[in-house]
Amino acid sequence: MNRSLPASLTQRDDIDLDPQIIETYCQGGRGEKGSALFVARPRSTQVASDIIALCVQEGIQLVPQSGRTGLVGASVPDPDGHHAVLSLERMTGDFHLDRINRTVTCGAGLRLSDINARLSPEALYMPIDLGSDPCIGGMVATNTGGSRLMRYGDVRRHVLGLTVILGDRNGTIVRLGGALRKTATGPDWKQLFVGTGASFGVITECTFNVEPTAKHKATALIALPDESALPDLLLELERRFGSLLSALEFMSANAMRAAHAHVPSLRRPFGGDLPDIALLVELSCDWPLDEADRSLDDILIGGLVGIAESGAANMGDVVIGRAEEVWAIRHALSEGVRKRGRLYAFDLSFRRGDVLRFRAAMKAQLGELFPDVEICDFGHVGDGGIHFNLVDHLAPGDWTPDRERMIRDTVIKTAVEDFDGSYSAEHGIGPVNFRYFDTYASAETRRFSAALEAVTSGKRLGRVHFSPEQTQ
Amino acid sequence: MNRSLPASLTQRDDIDLDPQIIETYCQGGRGEKGSALFVARPRSTQVASDIIALCVQEGIQLVPQSGRTGLVGASVPDPDGHHAVLSLERMTGDFHLDRINRTVTCGAGLRLSDINARLSPEALYMPIDLGSDPCIGGMVATNTGGSRLMRYGDVRRHVLGLTVILGDRNGTIVRLGGALRKTATGPDWKQLFVGTGASFGVITECTFNVEPTAKHKATALIALPDESALPDLLLELERRFGSLLSALEFMSANAMRAAHAHVPSLRRPFGGDLPDIALLVELSCDWPLDEADRSLDDILIGGLVGIAESGAANMGDVVIGRAEEVWAIRHALSEGVRKRGRLYAFDLSFRRGDVLRFRAAMKAQLGELFPDVEICDFGHVGDGGIHFNLVDHLAPGDWTPDRERMIRDTVIKTAVEDFDGSYSAEHGIGPVNFRYFDTYASAETRRFSAALEAVTSGKRLGRVHFSPEQTQ
Repeated sequence: MNRSLPASLTQRDDIDLDPQIIETYCQGGRGEKGSALFVARPRSTQVASDIIALCVQEGIQLVPQSGRTGLVGASVPDPDGHHAVLSLERMTGDFHLDRINRTVTCGAGLRLSDINARLSPEALYMPIDLGSDPCIGGMVATNTGGSRLMRYGDVRRHVLGLTVILGDRNGTIVRLGGALRKTATGPDWKQLFVGTGASFGVITECTFNVEPTAKHKATALIALPDESALPDLLLELERRFGSLLSALEFMSANAMRAAHAHVPSLRRPFGGDLPDIALLVELSCDWPLDEADRSLDDILIGGLVGIAESGAANMGDVVIGRAEEVWAIRHALSEGVRKRGRLYAFDLSFRRGDVLRFRAAMKAQLGELFPDVEICDFGHVGDGGIHFNLVDHLAPGDWTPDRERMIRDTVIKTAVEDFDGSYSAEHGIGPVNFRYFDTYASAETRRFSAALEAVTSGKRLGRVHFSPEQTQ
Repeated sequence: MNRSLPASLTQRDDIDLDPQIIETYCQGGRGEKGSALFVARPRSTQVASDIIALCVQEGIQLVPQSGRTGLVGASVPDPDGHHAVLSLERMTGDFHLDRINRTVTCGAGLRLSDINARLSPEALYMPIDLGSDPCIGGMVATNTGGSRLMRYGDVRRHVLGLTVILGDRNGTIVRLGGALRKTATGPDWKQLFVGTGASFGVITECTFNVEPTAKHKATALIALPDESALPDLLLELERRFGSLLSALEFMSANAMRAAHAHVPSLRRPFGGDLPDIALLVELSCDWPLDEADRSLDDILIGGLVGIAESGAANMGDVVIGRAEEVWAIRHALSEGVRKRGRLYAFDLSFRRGDVLRFRAAMKAQLGELFPDVEICDFGHVGDGGIHFNLVDHLAPGDWTPDRERMIRDTVIKTAVEDFDGSYSAEHGIGPVNFRYFDTYASAETRRFSAALEAVTSGKRLGRVHFSPEQTQ
């Protein structure tokens, strides 16, 4: 799309019109491709506000973007080129660690790895454990979860304060929350900007809690013959290890096989004979153990032996230790599965007892309806999350978009309608799942959204909206 | 006030017009007295919805109320009798523990002590530690904190799902969030009802996370010569004990003296010579220790000896153990201070490094301006909270309301304007602090509130509003 842009925009040195640069900023985390009028890359909240105000006045809808690691396309502009990209990646300044408050304040464009590198000398970190390396602004806007949610919670739990820009004609800057660990002076409006893309405003600065790094860890892989053993084992693990538990992940045989095919050097903890499910158990503590203390490995082994001897839960083989090797398998699952063929990725969540009940129901249902589809799932047993990934082995010539849509609808319908689950556990809302938002969002919550959009961005900002008329 | 009520209301057996019953429900947690047209005590969400719809149609503003333990008057009707009380205390049904999900669903009227009594056989509890015994609905509506916030967070962190009734002509029932530990399908609208009184709707049912009970605890009291030692000690304690720390409370000499005068049988851990500040340190763990493990007492002593030997932080006398005796002092502070004379209570919060800097500034300022005022403070060092309570020893004949207002304004102005603190850390907003909400709430957040009130309760429900025209 060609559109003549006013000089007030084109002559700014924080706005780029170079097609190659624009192309870079139009690619999403799952290979999506969009198109844009220009890319704006401000370095400060004030400049971002100026750009937003100009764009609102000119009627140009901005798609904010930070790390481009999102998995639902929320920060990718539409292909028809009527959007412009507002990249926050240059907003990396003003990193401030308040040691006594144990909080960090920084720009929205700082990467998680940069934050943790700066905190490392203080033995602190941002305890959100992800396979990718997003920027903090996007993490807040998506409310990311990750592998240690059962111990540390989601991003929402750690956010104390935000600076946001509304999408009004003035690009109004609003500061919410400050650096206080608690305050009860009315609605906590910063919640409006957590996990909502940029529907109500663009986050440019965050203040958040950070945690002491783990001083010791212990890891085990437990083979399970099938999913029915899981609930009892979950209860036993929590009873014996309490909040020492920092991760509880499951990996299906199919997903592990895909990871091994993708990275042949990965360890094969169970030899050639993969169990249907392998459960990754991690204990960690953030205080230094003394010489007189048992190691976490000993505590983990003692507890697992206790479970085995008591017969309280069924376990197959147990492999202890070598945390890096075990996590290497876990972190190779996603890419391994992607390499295996045509992928339909689902990011679902359930009550913890339902994760593997859903899985069993789905195995039966898909086996009957779509026998060419292979379930390569893995996920977060400790918090009810499951990356229910499907690989379609149908001959490419027989594939149709209708088939994909039918499979996707079947999975989501079962998850949401039969199991009260979520069709987006930790990846947020974007073009990838607008369709399900449209199906399942209630009339009341859409009215709430519409009321707020009227006084915040009013749909002049952001790629995602939650009000009735437009989610597509 | 007399007003003729329609038979559709007066003939319901869940609505009471008996003046004695009404009087009971018009008393607040700090002795406030209001007046009401009637008291409605529904037993179910549907009946509550019917009553709300009738009242909205009749133009009667309902003040929702659960445990009547609030400290800012938010659930006390006005004295002029134009309100009616909607008590949720009979909504105690349908307690459901999902063991595998580790969540509870119950009616808004269940008391915290009842919830914990039902969870006790499962070695689980709701980890909000309070001096009072509120109902869960009121806890969510206030977003209460308490003494173990540094470990477990506020109520908001634990709420997974809510059933609310909007204040519209239909008494629309909305269910938000379910029992999922994570979901990212758009705005988390239940946040709108956490910590906002009943401004946007009445909570009738909650689903929330519960935690394993502590299996072991260790407690120490540390004498500090003055507040300057605190920041270094806080850092050292977190470095050595990490998330074993479950409480870090300070008690001033004046507050302890008041507690001892009120309850002479309390232990005197430092003999007759009270330190300016006593710091209560609690470690706890929610997994069973083995015979081979050091006890938490040993870990605590070892760490404190390490701090003393390293000279990393200044400590005076240290008294170990006798947790019940130590907590008995802590829990007697509030009532002891109240008995000491005319009380001006403040519930403030700061960045952790500022809690005692504020205290030092205030000592100087009050000492000069109001020498008859005694600072009897205590609070939560671990999360930045301080109950900055003042006792006014001026002769009663010389006291004027203007004096009280000047003192209150001086404290709040210093807290908010000089230290970026909060004038309500964990008690919420009500008539007691409307005045400060009016002074400090931003124009933008009032616009957000007004937009939402227009589609939710629209000021036909609740005692507290956050929009421009009415907070008084």
